Amino acid sequence: MKYCNQCGGTVQSVIPNGDTNLRFVCTACEFIHYENPKIVVGTVPIHNNEVLLCLRAIEPRKNFWTLPAGFLENGESLAEGAIRESQEEALFTPLLGPMLAIVDVVHANQVHIFFRAGLTDNSFGPGVESLDVKMFSLDDIPWDEMAFKTGKIALKAQIEKEKND
Amino acid sequence: MKYCNQCGGTVQSVIPNGDTNLRFVCTACEFIHYENPKIVVGTVPIHNNEVLLCLRAIEPRKNFWTLPAGFLENGESLAEGAIRESQEEALFTPLLGPMLAIVDVVHANQVHIFFRAGLTDNSFGPGVESLDVKMFSLDDIPWDEMAFKTGKIALKAQIEKEKND
Repeated sequence: MKYCNQCGGTVQSVIPNGDTNLRFVCTACEFIHYENPKIVVGTVPIHNNEVLLCLRAIEPRKNFWTLPAGFLENGESLAEGAIRESQEEALFTPLLGPMLAIVDVVHANQVHIFFRAGLTDNSFGPGVESLDVKMFSLDDIPWDEMAFKTGKIALKAQIEKEKND
Repeated sequence: MKYCNQCGGTVQSVIPNGDTNLRFVCTACEFIHYENPKIVVGTVPIHNNEVLLCLRAIEPRKNFWTLPAGFLENGESLAEGAIRESQEEALFTPLLGPMLAIVDVVHANQVHIFFRAGLTDNSFGPGVESLDVKMFSLDDIPWDEMAFKTGKIALKAQIEKEKND
């Protein structure tokens, strides 16, 4: 960040009065530009002991498998975001269950939240951000080809939950 | 938002190619400025069937009671944020328990997350954003003087949980 989005003045990184963190503050209008972690929401879509995974068509981690997930948008609930991402990336509308995993991703300034989800029918397919969408047995997850650690954590939470049910 | 924080050009609100939402996009450098919901983290500090509440010294809802809570910062986990907010607003370090409530606040583009917390001793007091800090019996919460609906939801989750323990 170099310029103030309110007045177009230049910003500098300083600790404002009464604050303890560095912020970008406008040298002209003194507006403080706060930056905060973003939320990623997704689903763990389960049907007949199989889970739906998407093969990523985009960077980062193109050609690796992932759960349907993406950034929560302004104006939507966590559940609405998880449903939308499933629709966009895997062309199905999930039946949402409880939250399975809430994972800090501190180095990326993100929090990832996954819901267990049912597939209402077997209709799904790759959205524009996916090269392929497939069901995998929970005993045969391609762990070494998974895109992100948080997806693995959510899958392991689901597998552990199945054991205890 | 009127100006691009990357190049200082003017922004306009348009739907970028391949997107479905309006974004502020720079008319000069084409940088897309995404805006996403923020996370508020807090605690429900319980000791001897009493809960700690803070009397707000600042707007919004000055002079109303609230749980210790505030915006999660970049570089911290949800738990670290909840502990920091308790230290700042009520001058104590909570012993964090499980998450009690995760509440969508769609109209404000926020998600509020509360942890149950223990008080390690009876040392607490008002931080700069609080006029007073007091313990209230769970049977005698000042419901009509509570600042925010999400705090009430978290308190009710705690009361319900005590009943079932």
